[in-house]
Amino acid sequence: MEKYTGIKIAYIGGGSRGWARTLMNDLAKEPMLSGEVALYDIDYAAAEDNEKIGNDVSARDDVAGKWKYVAVKTEKEALIGADFVVISILPGTFDEMESDVHAPEKYGIYQSVGDTVGPGGAVRALRTVPMYIEIARNIEQFCPKAWVINFTNPMTICTRSLYRAYPEIRAFGCCHEVFSVQELIATIYNLKTGENIRRADVKTNVIGINHFTFIDSAFYGNTDLMPMVKEFAEEHYESGYKTHGEHWMNNSFACCERVKFDLLKRYGILGAAGDRHLSEFCPGKWYLGSPENVKKWMFGLTSVKWRKDDLKDRMAKTEKLVKREEEFKFFDSGEESVEQIKAILGAGDLVTNVNLPNHGQIEGFPEDAVVETNAVFTGGSISPVYAGKLPVPLKGLVLRNVMNQETLVEAAFTGDMELAFSAFVNDPLVNIGLDEARELFNTMTYNTRKYIPFYKKI
Amino acid sequence: MEKYTGIKIAYIGGGSRGWARTLMNDLAKEPMLSGEVALYDIDYAAAEDNEKIGNDVSARDDVAGKWKYVAVKTEKEALIGADFVVISILPGTFDEMESDVHAPEKYGIYQSVGDTVGPGGAVRALRTVPMYIEIARNIEQFCPKAWVINFTNPMTICTRSLYRAYPEIRAFGCCHEVFSVQELIATIYNLKTGENIRRADVKTNVIGINHFTFIDSAFYGNTDLMPMVKEFAEEHYESGYKTHGEHWMNNSFACCERVKFDLLKRYGILGAAGDRHLSEFCPGKWYLGSPENVKKWMFGLTSVKWRKDDLKDRMAKTEKLVKREEEFKFFDSGEESVEQIKAILGAGDLVTNVNLPNHGQIEGFPEDAVVETNAVFTGGSISPVYAGKLPVPLKGLVLRNVMNQETLVEAAFTGDMELAFSAFVNDPLVNIGLDEARELFNTMTYNTRKYIPFYKKI
Amino acid sequence: MEKYTGIKIAYIGGGSRGWARTLMNDLAKEPMLSGEVALYDIDYAAAEDNEKIGNDVSARDDVAGKWKYVAVKTEKEALIGADFVVISILPGTFDEMESDVHAPEKYGIYQSVGDTVGPGGAVRALRTVPMYIEIARNIEQFCPKAWVINFTNPMTICTRSLYRAYPEIRAFGCCHEVFSVQELIATIYNLKTGENIRRADVKTNVIGINHFTFIDSAFYGNTDLMPMVKEFAEEHYESGYKTHGEHWMNNSFACCERVKFDLLKRYGILGAAGDRHLSEFCPGKWYLGSPENVKKWMFGLTSVKWRKDDLKDRMAKTEKLVKREEEFKFFDSGEESVEQIKAILGAGDLVTNVNLPNHGQIEGFPEDAVVETNAVFTGGSISPVYAGKLPVPLKGLVLRNVMNQETLVEAAFTGDMELAFSAFVNDPLVNIGLDEARELFNTMTYNTRKYIPFYKKI
Amino acid sequence: MEKYTGIKIAYIGGGSRGWARTLMNDLAKEPMLSGEVALYDIDYAAAEDNEKIGNDVSARDDVAGKWKYVAVKTEKEALIGADFVVISILPGTFDEMESDVHAPEKYGIYQSVGDTVGPGGAVRALRTVPMYIEIARNIEQFCPKAWVINFTNPMTICTRSLYRAYPEIRAFGCCHEVFSVQELIATIYNLKTGENIRRADVKTNVIGINHFTFIDSAFYGNTDLMPMVKEFAEEHYESGYKTHGEHWMNNSFACCERVKFDLLKRYGILGAAGDRHLSEFCPGKWYLGSPENVKKWMFGLTSVKWRKDDLKDRMAKTEKLVKREEEFKFFDSGEESVEQIKAILGAGDLVTNVNLPNHGQIEGFPEDAVVETNAVFTGGSISPVYAGKLPVPLKGLVLRNVMNQETLVEAAFTGDMELAFSAFVNDPLVNIGLDEARELFNTMTYNTRKYIPFYKKI
Repeated sequence: MEKYTGIKIAYIGGGSRGWARTLMNDLAKEPMLSGEVALYDIDYAAAEDNEKIGNDVSARDDVAGKWKYVAVKTEKEALIGADFVVISILPGTFDEMESDVHAPEKYGIYQSVGDTVGPGGAVRALRTVPMYIEIARNIEQFCPKAWVINFTNPMTICTRSLYRAYPEIRAFGCCHEVFSVQELIATIYNLKTGENIRRADVKTNVIGINHFTFIDSAFYGNTDLMPMVKEFAEEHYESGYKTHGEHWMNNSFACCERVKFDLLKRYGILGAAGDRHLSEFCPGKWYLGSPENVKKWMFGLTSVKWRKDDLKDRMAKTEKLVKREEEFKFFDSGEESVEQIKAILGAGDLVTNVNLPNHGQIEGFPEDAVVETNAVFTGGSISPVYAGKLPVPLKGLVLRNVMNQETLVEAAFTGDMELAFSAFVNDPLVNIGLDEARELFNTMTYNTRKYIPFYKKI
Repeated sequence: MEKYTGIKIAYIGGGSRGWARTLMNDLAKEPMLSGEVALYDIDYAAAEDNEKIGNDVSARDDVAGKWKYVAVKTEKEALIGADFVVISILPGTFDEMESDVHAPEKYGIYQSVGDTVGPGGAVRALRTVPMYIEIARNIEQFCPKAWVINFTNPMTICTRSLYRAYPEIRAFGCCHEVFSVQELIATIYNLKTGENIRRADVKTNVIGINHFTFIDSAFYGNTDLMPMVKEFAEEHYESGYKTHGEHWMNNSFACCERVKFDLLKRYGILGAAGDRHLSEFCPGKWYLGSPENVKKWMFGLTSVKWRKDDLKDRMAKTEKLVKREEEFKFFDSGEESVEQIKAILGAGDLVTNVNLPNHGQIEGFPEDAVVETNAVFTGGSISPVYAGKLPVPLKGLVLRNVMNQETLVEAAFTGDMELAFSAFVNDPLVNIGLDEARELFNTMTYNTRKYIPFYKKI
Repeated sequence: MEKYTGIKIAYIGGGSRGWARTLMNDLAKEPMLSGEVALYDIDYAAAEDNEKIGNDVSARDDVAGKWKYVAVKTEKEALIGADFVVISILPGTFDEMESDVHAPEKYGIYQSVGDTVGPGGAVRALRTVPMYIEIARNIEQFCPKAWVINFTNPMTICTRSLYRAYPEIRAFGCCHEVFSVQELIATIYNLKTGENIRRADVKTNVIGINHFTFIDSAFYGNTDLMPMVKEFAEEHYESGYKTHGEHWMNNSFACCERVKFDLLKRYGILGAAGDRHLSEFCPGKWYLGSPENVKKWMFGLTSVKWRKDDLKDRMAKTEKLVKREEEFKFFDSGEESVEQIKAILGAGDLVTNVNLPNHGQIEGFPEDAVVETNAVFTGGSISPVYAGKLPVPLKGLVLRNVMNQETLVEAAFTGDMELAFSAFVNDPLVNIGLDEARELFNTMTYNTRKYIPFYKKI
Repeated sequence: MEKYTGIKIAYIGGGSRGWARTLMNDLAKEPMLSGEVALYDIDYAAAEDNEKIGNDVSARDDVAGKWKYVAVKTEKEALIGADFVVISILPGTFDEMESDVHAPEKYGIYQSVGDTVGPGGAVRALRTVPMYIEIARNIEQFCPKAWVINFTNPMTICTRSLYRAYPEIRAFGCCHEVFSVQELIATIYNLKTGENIRRADVKTNVIGINHFTFIDSAFYGNTDLMPMVKEFAEEHYESGYKTHGEHWMNNSFACCERVKFDLLKRYGILGAAGDRHLSEFCPGKWYLGSPENVKKWMFGLTSVKWRKDDLKDRMAKTEKLVKREEEFKFFDSGEESVEQIKAILGAGDLVTNVNLPNHGQIEGFPEDAVVETNAVFTGGSISPVYAGKLPVPLKGLVLRNVMNQETLVEAAFTGDMELAFSAFVNDPLVNIGLDEARELFNTMTYNTRKYIPFYKKI
């Protein structure tokens, strides 16, 4: 077995109580890699907590991958010498997110997530892009050749901003939403055949933009799985299909795949993200529009109250880990970033879906807009794989969102609030009059104004 | 002066009581051209009326352009030997149009015209495309080299269908909506300077799709008129600007340019069609949404009752002309088709806006989709002029409609009602739930089913 | 009649004894325009001569267009306040050109002109681009909104350099070669029909790059002239066709159109430049290769000795004009620049062929490479007209030269002699071994080294 | 271990005495696959020989992959039910190839291979395309979903013809030339470091067209190998580098990489095919031009006499195998087709270079032209990987050949000898006058006329 030692990972947002644990978990389980993880966070104390937890994990005998975790006080310290940069931040706090998600409800606009598109995603973009411009410039200065993995939402806009601020950056955006749909396809196959294949056995063509991604071809071996998936979707069109143990009504993240099945029925192509995400890219009355309609389509609206409560739990758990009152429990993360890192280091080719600037991998999409398709990870490079084209009616739906995202990035780079509003008011969920939309936009941006350097009332 | 004699014009829809008079008028005034106009109409008697009226006009001493008008019983007779084909038909009757325009009102969807986009435009497309496929095939068979001028709405879809059915066709679509905006620009200049320039003095770059067309550059001589237009729009943003004598509330076609001014303010580019048209391409709550909102934006909803009454007037007038109780009165049509015909015949170059398949004249728009830009008419050819690109946020708005139109054409060519619905439900005006949309679609297509060969309930 | 007064034209290369007279001539005959021509030349005395001659012309009673000619000592003085900039310079002297044209003859490489492509054109490019970078930067600084008309060769490379150095420049390149082919088409029509049409009656589609331009459609009125042209070319394939009074063997610029006819026969499309130019873009053995082969194809090799003698004549003539021993004689220039200036000022639309960056007007050609097609000149703007695509085999021939030109521009902007050599050695005329080519390149660049800031032996 | 049984491979050209052995060898060594190989050849007896040899191999105890070999009398029998189609034919005989390669020598045109481009490649294309049209139509009829692997030269033209005749074909072209350059890179690394990596450890980006392919990025792990390769090429620029045991002058296939090193020096990108191939795409005097120049660049001209002698040896060997006088000896083929088959069947992803229609994998290359880049083979699909763009000067060299190949395909599909000549005469090796070229073209096509259905003297 080859070993890659002395790898330095800079973790921006390294005080995280969520995704940081996933990274520790996955690094600990991987025997081929070792090195240092530099944790940078605006909350230094949180980074220190992770330093302790991480080093405790590394010290354990049952851990194959040995890493040194170091909390640092500046982004610069984290970045200098980094081979990989992981970015997973919360832009602002859950208070800002509360405004993003819930302020629009007064206008009859319901969002199931509110961090990607919709009025919430748009306003989140305005506060996130300035942070990403700074990160990109620091990377250019301190580790221009590092590989940069983004996990923050809005994914498309974050990745696009990195490339716009520093065009030679070697960045890509990672998201696991597609994986769960590949899992669903495996499940369908297993249900239909009695076999027991896993997600990794399902080979798919991925095409779209993050959270509004699609699968138009799925194979197990040389067997085309799409007919089976379509049949299954037809059978469960009304009832939905519940994968998770818990009832979807009690779970902020669960869904019954009805949105996916409806899109498949109408467009002949399978939505490859959770229904909570897919629904936000569609005209507002289709799947959202009212809590009743959401219930009918059998998915949940994730409230920010839930997120706040959940954060408290995670903080409590962190404290226990820091104080060694509890031991870190390993789990199957289902993430691929460690696999991607290995492939880039030359440990074997990997084909998986990521977010990259478009260079023709999706036909008829604008050059440089960030899209999600398969890519080949191999020693020293990542290259997108040609994904083909979307069915024309769906292309219209997706491009509408692409143009809004491109507009938001332009608005945030140039500090143009009116331009930002032109994307906001054309969002599929913003089905309201122009005056109301302006009022809502002003309220929402006011609520997050301290993170928008170019904020002004319009 | 050169003379072009022996020209044959085939007029499909030649029983018209409206546009046929315009053609007679313009041909009569033009001394360079003469020949025959073959009038074909499914209502042969109406074509015969026009034969009489046309020949009476031609016989007058004060008429420079001498044409022989002949009503014919088949499209084939009209087309054989034709140098030009003019298509101006009413697809179906005003009864079908009544359903197109007013059936959606039960769902809170108001349309100011209802013949281009919106639910009405979509359903009208489904009954028009089959007619255009037949026309295109007849042209291919009987006069493959003829120049084909379309005036029927939905313009984009009609022109696109001609090219799709017969790719070598020499067709273009003509519409005068842009002219009235050039007129408005001339008026603004005159008001600001006290001079007296005419529409033809204003040189504009035209970019967009029919009825959702834009002007991003306007010059009088070497003087850039856009700053003046923007200033004027700012001044009249709230009050609107009334060009026409009659009050807009009493006139089905009038508007006060407020929609145009709002788009200019928000996108920096001037809408180049009547507000009644522009508003139908935008998200439904912006300018339409309710009769009150329409009133606020100061334009009228053209009811089909008005159209029916107007038709009665025109039929009465026709009878008087046929019976020679009244004499044909010449007027200034403001149309350019006779000029275009002359330019194609080699009488001098002409640059004007028309609808043609995209071959790069609009950057980032799909190849072959029909777009409206300037084109050069010269001896034996029409070539589109490079128009540049739209501002990104507006591009999103326009492309959404382009994709819907492309989808409708595909649906009508393949006879796929579900595909047609996928465009219908993504129309900017169809801000309703999926079930309601399906119900409305079924009602509307049922009402026009006799013109849809592939009709079925979905 | 409208009048445009107070126009300022900056003339870079204003000491010219050739093209300056054409401009004086054309301005003098045009009653609509008046203003000032600022003459800048590195040879100030020559500019002063033209100041005198120009003002003498303007003072004459029989002159409609009144202009003040002023010799200035710096480019800056010429440019400040300019509405139009005319650039017509000789890059270097005829001594450098002597090396460009004749040095390759030792290697069996014969060039008929040597100022566009071929080894001579390549080396000329290397000394011209630095001059054009400086001009572009001065225009950006002193008259950023001026319209810039280039006449210097290599045309494509000069125009491309202007745009590369200052992307917002409003520049275009003008060349009369296409006109003479339109003239030829008119002549063919007249010979065949006994009529008497003029060049302006022939409407053509123009497609290609400067001096390797083509006409694939030609109409007189609605009559397709191409069949007649092909028939004529067939009839005169062996004998050639002599338009000019003088025999082609005694005239450095004459040809018998055999190259054109051969290209038409083999590619179905008419070369639209003199045979001396067309032949230089083709593989070296086709039409050049040896003086005997050139004779066989019936065109002349323009020696630089001829140019030097001709210059002496022109200088003598200049002296007479300055001393008023001779009066300026008006002539029919056949140029269109004054017409173009008028159209830009708003005096009426003009469609003619010019050199502009490609934005899709030629399908499958690189974005931004400079191409020659029709364009619309209208008030305040120039827009290219869609020209379609070249036949595939010809596209290969043309693109080879486009890539060489793109490479030369890149080489001169980055000062990379090896890169310049990579274009040189792939030139269609450079049919020699790599070592010989390197030797020749070193000799030729050495000869012109004082004009190449980045010169070095490679 | 998964097993894929019941696979049917149709082998067109199945009487081969060369490549058939490689396939037998590789199938025999692969335990995961089994099924039937249907051998079709116009020489049925030769197919029968392979049936015997193949079944003898399969019967051996030391053989893991069990296949049944069946000689069939018609292409139809081979194709019906086929999962994979392998095409490896000799278009015509070595007599035709003798004309292709050696007839041009009279005109000073030397070809090192003569089966891809050059006059030989062009004429070979004319007789091959009609065969490929027939094969494609049979595949469409008898096994429309089969995966088709082409090995025949001219590779680009064969693959292009398959797609042009049957656009839904699932075909790709395989060639091992790139592999040997990856081998060379591994060798360079090993020489420089003393390590011992293998070809498969070297990850490259592949870009170009078959036999004129390039590598612009090479990594071992995360280590960029290009600096090392450039250094090595510099060191061995004059002397060349001999990989093979035998001296290159005595070996028809060997080379000393000098052409490759020269292209690398001049274009900064590594040629990824044997020098014998690379040289044929370049202007004729660069590396070919005369036997002396070829010797200087240290590679061999493969004479057809050698091929004929070699064939005799292989026929003798075949006889021994058929008569069981000799036993089949297994060898390391270095081919990847069995790996590709496995990946398509779902046995694991594979990234390797193949020939596919361009859909943007090479920027600025014509859509649908066949290009060679990496592609992902995975269950049920092959998708090209984005390869970027070529350096501009090299792009000119490559596109010239692409256009010639596109022209030849068009000529053979439309039966247009003049069009074929327009490619022939623009070939980089055809540095002769137009009359001579026509004479040579007529001679060469006459020699192979029985295989050109549309043959005529031009």
